Amino acid sequence: MSFIRNAWYVAAWASEVEGSKMLPRTILGEQIILMRDGEGLAAAVSGVCPHRFASLSMGRLENGVVHCAYHGLGFDHTGACVHNPFGAPPKTMRLKAYPVVERYSALWIWMGEADQADPALIPDFAFNDPAHHWVGEGYLLAKANYELEVENILDLSHIQFLHASTLGSSEVSNGRYEWKQEGEQIWSNRDVYGEIMTPQLATAMGVPVGQPVDRWIYVRWDAPANMAIFAGAVPAGQPQDRQRETPTTHFFTPETEGTTHYFYAISFPRAMGPAGEAMAQEQVRFLSIPFESEDLPMLEQQQRNLQGKSLRDSKLGWLPGDAAGARARNLLYARMDAEAAR
Amino acid sequence: MSFIRNAWYVAAWASEVEGSKMLPRTILGEQIILMRDGEGLAAAVSGVCPHRFASLSMGRLENGVVHCAYHGLGFDHTGACVHNPFGAPPKTMRLKAYPVVERYSALWIWMGEADQADPALIPDFAFNDPAHHWVGEGYLLAKANYELEVENILDLSHIQFLHASTLGSSEVSNGRYEWKQEGEQIWSNRDVYGEIMTPQLATAMGVPVGQPVDRWIYVRWDAPANMAIFAGAVPAGQPQDRQRETPTTHFFTPETEGTTHYFYAISFPRAMGPAGEAMAQEQVRFLSIPFESEDLPMLEQQQRNLQGKSLRDSKLGWLPGDAAGARARNLLYARMDAEAAR
Amino acid sequence: MSFIRNAWYVAAWASEVEGSKMLPRTILGEQIILMRDGEGLAAAVSGVCPHRFASLSMGRLENGVVHCAYHGLGFDHTGACVHNPFGAPPKTMRLKAYPVVERYSALWIWMGEADQADPALIPDFAFNDPAHHWVGEGYLLAKANYELEVENILDLSHIQFLHASTLGSSEVSNGRYEWKQEGEQIWSNRDVYGEIMTPQLATAMGVPVGQPVDRWIYVRWDAPANMAIFAGAVPAGQPQDRQRETPTTHFFTPETEGTTHYFYAISFPRAMGPAGEAMAQEQVRFLSIPFESEDLPMLEQQQRNLQGKSLRDSKLGWLPGDAAGARARNLLYARMDAEAAR
Repeated sequence: MSFIRNAWYVAAWASEVEGSKMLPRTILGEQIILMRDGEGLAAAVSGVCPHRFASLSMGRLENGVVHCAYHGLGFDHTGACVHNPFGAPPKTMRLKAYPVVERYSALWIWMGEADQADPALIPDFAFNDPAHHWVGEGYLLAKANYELEVENILDLSHIQFLHASTLGSSEVSNGRYEWKQEGEQIWSNRDVYGEIMTPQLATAMGVPVGQPVDRWIYVRWDAPANMAIFAGAVPAGQPQDRQRETPTTHFFTPETEGTTHYFYAISFPRAMGPAGEAMAQEQVRFLSIPFESEDLPMLEQQQRNLQGKSLRDSKLGWLPGDAAGARARNLLYARMDAEAAR
Repeated sequence: MSFIRNAWYVAAWASEVEGSKMLPRTILGEQIILMRDGEGLAAAVSGVCPHRFASLSMGRLENGVVHCAYHGLGFDHTGACVHNPFGAPPKTMRLKAYPVVERYSALWIWMGEADQADPALIPDFAFNDPAHHWVGEGYLLAKANYELEVENILDLSHIQFLHASTLGSSEVSNGRYEWKQEGEQIWSNRDVYGEIMTPQLATAMGVPVGQPVDRWIYVRWDAPANMAIFAGAVPAGQPQDRQRETPTTHFFTPETEGTTHYFYAISFPRAMGPAGEAMAQEQVRFLSIPFESEDLPMLEQQQRNLQGKSLRDSKLGWLPGDAAGARARNLLYARMDAEAAR
Repeated sequence: MSFIRNAWYVAAWASEVEGSKMLPRTILGEQIILMRDGEGLAAAVSGVCPHRFASLSMGRLENGVVHCAYHGLGFDHTGACVHNPFGAPPKTMRLKAYPVVERYSALWIWMGEADQADPALIPDFAFNDPAHHWVGEGYLLAKANYELEVENILDLSHIQFLHASTLGSSEVSNGRYEWKQEGEQIWSNRDVYGEIMTPQLATAMGVPVGQPVDRWIYVRWDAPANMAIFAGAVPAGQPQDRQRETPTTHFFTPETEGTTHYFYAISFPRAMGPAGEAMAQEQVRFLSIPFESEDLPMLEQQQRNLQGKSLRDSKLGWLPGDAAGARARNLLYARMDAEAAR
């Protein structure tokens, strides 16, 4: 498995799991049921009944208890069997329970050893805090390994080609690029000078349409694949104004070796009022177009071309823009090996 | 392979194989052609031409001879090559012939050593004898291993949950349950007291709609997976009246490791006249609803959750209601091991 | 792999690769881009970018350079990286280039060692030379191994059965058959006497409809699977008139172990003028019917019945008509073994 387990993954947008609704989702190849307990606290349990392997997604959630559709066993949010229509609930039949934290508009799940599930390890996505930001949320399922997604975002040189008419411009390759590691965090920063952005992108970034701008696009990666892009633009030649920077979120969570949940978002301050909310919704719709119609076909074709091999076991070419992605993958591989060695 | 070979399997309803028609069907992973010889006796031969692996299902049956569509070789119901357009029929090219017996409205096939194919080993389904009963016949193909089907029928506690609005009621779990072994036969018997059945079920069972009844549901299993359910109901508190018992038939025949032919039927005495015939047709249509829309999705999801493993190699949970199914499977496993050891 | 590599395969009809268009096609399991250089010379390079495994089919061909859609690398028809938007083209990233020859209306590709790619090894299909013949071209993709195709064409006894109402007649099995080997070439020749051909076939062959004819059908095979059929007919009893012979072409090129590109054609002399051109188009349309609706389902079913095994590893039956096919396959196997031994 090309996964690390002792890490926080985003299992869902918090808004996907409402009061009395359960959400079935496969993460790292495991069926999981996301739900909320009586107090609205998010929880996650294994999604397969230990009795006869029925998927609990076929059952129902009632008063915080998941009832199996086959023989009626009921399990609470801790995984304990609390209901057996034919006798005492068997203590030996438990669902695995996973640590879950709700933060930054998302439900974070810990797939590894529960005693290491420290919420302080969740990377900072404060700009997704719904108390202070309007968060436009998107989701898609990619038939590609998450490492391909990490490389896609850490090397945004591709926006000039793959996103020529949406997010890119002909000036990207003339810009400046640097990457750096800060602790376990990787940054991949790109400055583009004097580019004319597409009208849609200029409007989104609050710069005049059709005029040259200087754009900065700074990407941050935290293991396993929780990424942020901080991007902004100013009229060409003006100094950077970080106040005009818009953060986007890119959470990648493996569904299986060959498929990945992609949670993406764009955030605007609540201080902007209703205009900010409208902007968040409009901009996330705009982003969905290149993500689904440009990135997705490319990533899925890469995955097919891997022919079942992992990226780690494949002989890749090398361009300077690959450095950040390669470093991130090496950090992942070191942790995979450490987990496998234990 | 999780199959026993020295056993009688139902290959088809007898009515599926008419005079001049051949029926191709895969059983235990083998392509088979079912046909009748000149006197109408049912026969079964391998469905793949030994010459160049053409499926004989693409050819035609003419005067009891199956002609391959590719190069015209003809084989009779014994599997012998009896026609070669280009010379003498080659004696070395034969189809495998399988012992077949027509009994109880079905064609029974023996997949193992022919000299052990004793028709006396066919279990008793006299209530399917078309001379004395109207038999409403149904068929479906399940993408699930036959052992899951055996467990499904031997543990009918699930009718309270999976069939809540069709075959079950809330009182099933309050009933009485016992199982027993009689020789190689397993019985799994359930009595339910004071239940209010769905109107459709009450009508089918000939008891007043909306009034509490006592129902008995007795299940019989014979290896590998030929099962009968004897069920009846009387107004609550009255003694059982076995005259009012209706038998249903559940023949499961593996198509492959992961798919199963399901032949089901319900029988009424010919003595009932035309009303009995109408009842048989109407009731089998009613049964098809829970079988196809409730059991099938559950069984097929279980199969997917096995992820390619056999039930035998999986760690299952245990409820008292599983005893009969577990015993049946153990009998199967012992015979599998014995066959493998030879 | 059941392929020989040091051989000429037909990659495409020449007409499929026009001036500024590139054609992606998988051959022997490898993605390939077919294109033409600045002077219109056909070329073939690997279809997967060595940088991040993007399929170059998603990119674009511009001025003889294939540009990857992902990060903009450009490769010329020799496979050299000639464009890198972010710096000097990396010499270490090359596409594999394959020798290609345009001849007989087709593009021939050499999948093995380039220094052995002698154009003199291309078998003679002069009747497909567009300078002197009208060539009606057809193509289909069969989900069957190419060896099944070779056997299909080398044993045309099947036209009596599989093509009973199109290409065959009841007299085929009464004809004369012989096969011979001439060097590395196999011939499989069939003469049929006094047959009444279907009206469409009689018209195509220029003999009276409804009257008995003598037909000759001579098949030629060159490794790996480049085949020609020379067929003609005269009123029964008259001597063969080779002037009235029409050649058809059958090029089989493995796409994968289980799928095959089938390029077929029928040729008429340019001397016939426009009538010849019309004839070529009409006849190739006629041929497409039995090839697609009669041969294809049979071949694909054979492939499924092989259940992942190769024909070489399967125990086949034997009829005298199989001799030519068996000889051809043995020649292939000997070359496979020789290639594997090196």
